Amino acid sequence: MIQTVDFKAVIDKYQTIFFDSYGVIKNHNGKVPGVDATFEYLEQTGKQFYVLTNDASRSPIQLAQSFQKIGLSQITADKIISSGMLAKDYLDLKVNDGTVAYLGTPDSAHYIDSSGLHTMPVSMITEENIDQVNALVFLDDEGFDWFEDLNKAVNLIRRRNIPAIVANTDHAYPVNKQDVAIAIGGLAHMIEHITGKKFIRFGKPDSQMFNFAYDILRAKGDINKKDILMVGDTLNTDIIGGNKFGLDTVLVLTGNTLPKDAETRITATGIVPTYICTSAVID
Amino acid sequence: MIQTVDFKAVIDKYQTIFFDSYGVIKNHNGKVPGVDATFEYLEQTGKQFYVLTNDASRSPIQLAQSFQKIGLSQITADKIISSGMLAKDYLDLKVNDGTVAYLGTPDSAHYIDSSGLHTMPVSMITEENIDQVNALVFLDDEGFDWFEDLNKAVNLIRRRNIPAIVANTDHAYPVNKQDVAIAIGGLAHMIEHITGKKFIRFGKPDSQMFNFAYDILRAKGDINKKDILMVGDTLNTDIIGGNKFGLDTVLVLTGNTLPKDAETRITATGIVPTYICTSAVID
Amino acid sequence: MIQTVDFKAVIDKYQTIFFDSYGVIKNHNGKVPGVDATFEYLEQTGKQFYVLTNDASRSPIQLAQSFQKIGLSQITADKIISSGMLAKDYLDLKVNDGTVAYLGTPDSAHYIDSSGLHTMPVSMITEENIDQVNALVFLDDEGFDWFEDLNKAVNLIRRRNIPAIVANTDHAYPVNKQDVAIAIGGLAHMIEHITGKKFIRFGKPDSQMFNFAYDILRAKGDINKKDILMVGDTLNTDIIGGNKFGLDTVLVLTGNTLPKDAETRITATGIVPTYICTSAVID
Amino acid sequence: MIQTVDFKAVIDKYQTIFFDSYGVIKNHNGKVPGVDATFEYLEQTGKQFYVLTNDASRSPIQLAQSFQKIGLSQITADKIISSGMLAKDYLDLKVNDGTVAYLGTPDSAHYIDSSGLHTMPVSMITEENIDQVNALVFLDDEGFDWFEDLNKAVNLIRRRNIPAIVANTDHAYPVNKQDVAIAIGGLAHMIEHITGKKFIRFGKPDSQMFNFAYDILRAKGDINKKDILMVGDTLNTDIIGGNKFGLDTVLVLTGNTLPKDAETRITATGIVPTYICTSAVID
Repeated sequence: MIQTVDFKAVIDKYQTIFFDSYGVIKNHNGKVPGVDATFEYLEQTGKQFYVLTNDASRSPIQLAQSFQKIGLSQITADKIISSGMLAKDYLDLKVNDGTVAYLGTPDSAHYIDSSGLHTMPVSMITEENIDQVNALVFLDDEGFDWFEDLNKAVNLIRRRNIPAIVANTDHAYPVNKQDVAIAIGGLAHMIEHITGKKFIRFGKPDSQMFNFAYDILRAKGDINKKDILMVGDTLNTDIIGGNKFGLDTVLVLTGNTLPKDAETRITATGIVPTYICTSAVID
Repeated sequence: MIQTVDFKAVIDKYQTIFFDSYGVIKNHNGKVPGVDATFEYLEQTGKQFYVLTNDASRSPIQLAQSFQKIGLSQITADKIISSGMLAKDYLDLKVNDGTVAYLGTPDSAHYIDSSGLHTMPVSMITEENIDQVNALVFLDDEGFDWFEDLNKAVNLIRRRNIPAIVANTDHAYPVNKQDVAIAIGGLAHMIEHITGKKFIRFGKPDSQMFNFAYDILRAKGDINKKDILMVGDTLNTDIIGGNKFGLDTVLVLTGNTLPKDAETRITATGIVPTYICTSAVID
Repeated sequence: MIQTVDFKAVIDKYQTIFFDSYGVIKNHNGKVPGVDATFEYLEQTGKQFYVLTNDASRSPIQLAQSFQKIGLSQITADKIISSGMLAKDYLDLKVNDGTVAYLGTPDSAHYIDSSGLHTMPVSMITEENIDQVNALVFLDDEGFDWFEDLNKAVNLIRRRNIPAIVANTDHAYPVNKQDVAIAIGGLAHMIEHITGKKFIRFGKPDSQMFNFAYDILRAKGDINKKDILMVGDTLNTDIIGGNKFGLDTVLVLTGNTLPKDAETRITATGIVPTYICTSAVID
Repeated sequence: MIQTVDFKAVIDKYQTIFFDSYGVIKNHNGKVPGVDATFEYLEQTGKQFYVLTNDASRSPIQLAQSFQKIGLSQITADKIISSGMLAKDYLDLKVNDGTVAYLGTPDSAHYIDSSGLHTMPVSMITEENIDQVNALVFLDDEGFDWFEDLNKAVNLIRRRNIPAIVANTDHAYPVNKQDVAIAIGGLAHMIEHITGKKFIRFGKPDSQMFNFAYDILRAKGDINKKDILMVGDTLNTDIIGGNKFGLDTVLVLTGNTLPKDAETRITATGIVPTYICTSAVID
């Protein structure tokens, strides 16, 4: 079993903490037991924190509500940075008119919609309106008929030379202690491969996500990357992304990386966190 | 436009002809116009031929019926070699007991079933019977609920350390002049990627398919690879597979490779057919 | 032949221009003929510009000297942002002690060296000092013995669980009108594949490079992404990187993308520039 | 530690045994200690055997001599099937005239040469003779200047639309207890990636290698795949290749797969051998 260090001792060295959500704060059972104490401690000590999540299925407001439901009142909407926010920024800057077709739930689309662009589920694409579609966004694995709409998405991308945006880079996500589900990032990867086109991905480990949070910090005052810590459960998103952006990183063992596998995976991938802690919980 | 040669002049040099099916003999409209003459000519001249197809959705008998329906009575079941036949051979040799779970139509499974093994659609896997499942076979993109059953297939492969057999290596197939559909090979590739397991694939360009046909020829008497010609419309299955097996090859321009793209694609991939012909039709 | 627009008319719409170097400003013959007028025009009109280059073989000062030698005096060292600068930043933030081993020329290493870390060519790694090596950096394809040192680099990465940094993501680069050479990014990719480790890459299309330039602009005053234009010759670095970062982009046809191939490649990849211009030259 | 079974008890069930060479019969120290007894036993009991090796650096005669030097006199040239033999067959069937350029030692080329085609090291390609080069073969990682000749090979493949044949699919090979070396298959993979061309690979796990041995067996009399056992140390060549070809397989733990990793790797890859034995040695 791998050697771990005390989480509180680690965060005491930093001014700002970035947290991954799933596998760190939450899991399939709800809240990671005891994690409340961590956010209370951050509040008391005046440390800043942000939650960086590859979840584009809901808006920051909805994500914040889900944290509040499980008693984590400190995690307000302004503390949440999601890959969906980057996708929205991209659409605002780069897609000036027409319709944005999407794969996902109406909730996920509502969020993108608010930027002024007209959104439409892939299922509603017809021979008549296909020429108005100026982007395709992959938001969520639910909310559509996989057989019908994945095939429609393939042919949309083949016919219209438009950007395809993947707002969640994960290929699968856990649904219970044992099983996983195919994520929208996995479906998008298949369609990218079939069509041969190059899709645009937002989310960890891409540095754009870390930069989004870093920009908010800078707007509030002086900040140094040396004073920021990234906490995550996944080597190939949270840890390599944090490392590459120049941050110190903590791997916690409450999610994707099991205590028994941590050492093997670190050695196999060469992705080395600055610290390893049992969890993000303060004892 | 690329330089082509006369198809009849080419086949006159060979004793045996291997044909791909889709894009060569058939397309989305039915028969490639005029191709009947080719099979009549082969019959008259006593040349042998086989159809090598990456289609595991039906048995050779059903495939032969579909040729007969469009007037190609020469293409009998014994002339057809499908990737499904290789998958069946594999199951016969390597899976001795238990159940074979499948993704596909009942028709595709019926064929595998006949080998004595019990087959079961992925949809019927339960906590009770999952431990009896000793193989998973990807047969056809139809006949199941993509959302439910692709997710079930992912978790089957994660939980049971069993072979996953892909009986059709194609990632997409044409459905009309303009559009394609995601093939079972594309879905299998996604699940292989998500689970990290190594799947077993049957079908062109793999040499096992060419060898299956070659073995039948040898059983009938002396044959030399120099006397066999492979006719196909797809560079990265028919042509590279034929080339690698040591056969001369003809690219025809009635399917995947359009006349306007042929030269660019040959140069880009470095897959060079021995001949290029407009079609497999004898004028 | 693809439709192009006038380069001067395009840049007149923007306040700041980002240029790729090779294939846009320079090529294997030296300066792209007539490009001087462009930089004179930028100077006269008070537009800001930066050169963003995936060239880690030399420092910005040395790169600026090479521009001055061909008469482009406007391109001073402070105008140059190279992938090597990002690699240096990474080392400053994340590698605190020990030695940085490198593949490249002494020139390329001198630059990294100046950050206070001790650097050492891979050729000098011995059984005695290997335990002090805390990072490996891929800088240039010249300056070392490929057979000896690529094999040493593989075994360094296998034995020491340290970050491997690739300061140039290109896999090949043109050496004359006809031929290319394998770039350090291609060699690094092979070693990453053989060792199974995950390397850290800096350079376009990664957004960190664009952000580095954007941060400099913000430090000088208000700037909006809508006012920045990225000019490049390569779809899968300059154009997709600029697009993803939210910038408008121009594809010029003086480098990697030939006039006769531009349309095919844009359609095949789905990477669509905002504009296409014959060159970055003002007539 | 994984459960193993007795090797003698396993081979007693089969008529013919296929062996991998490196990691099974030999390793970096020479002979796997005690393996002589296995070949004596095969001789006594009249079982047939073949050695299937991804080694194209020498001819079967030279390979047999290397076995005889370490006292394995039973392994004569006619018992050896190498990926180089498949490459030679390909050249005999498919390259009718001109020159075959190669990367490797003169020894490796001598073997190909004997088929009547003129061979030439890549280093000797000039502007004058490049148009006569009709194939490029990757034989061995030694015998050429990596920097000069790998770059020449890239440009040969870019300029001439000719087949590139990789006679050894391995990407690395062990040179001592601790270190590996980059194999010609790894170098070929890099060049394939850079040029975008599709190379032709011979060697396990490809079924063509197994079929070559199977054909020899059939020429001698009736044989059934059920009576053949494949013995190897590498899951993703020997074991998956044997499995796919329909053979029963033994994983031995004297080479690539260490006793402590066997279980993890089998689970991670889903490549399951029929048996696991400590070694191919009969106690």
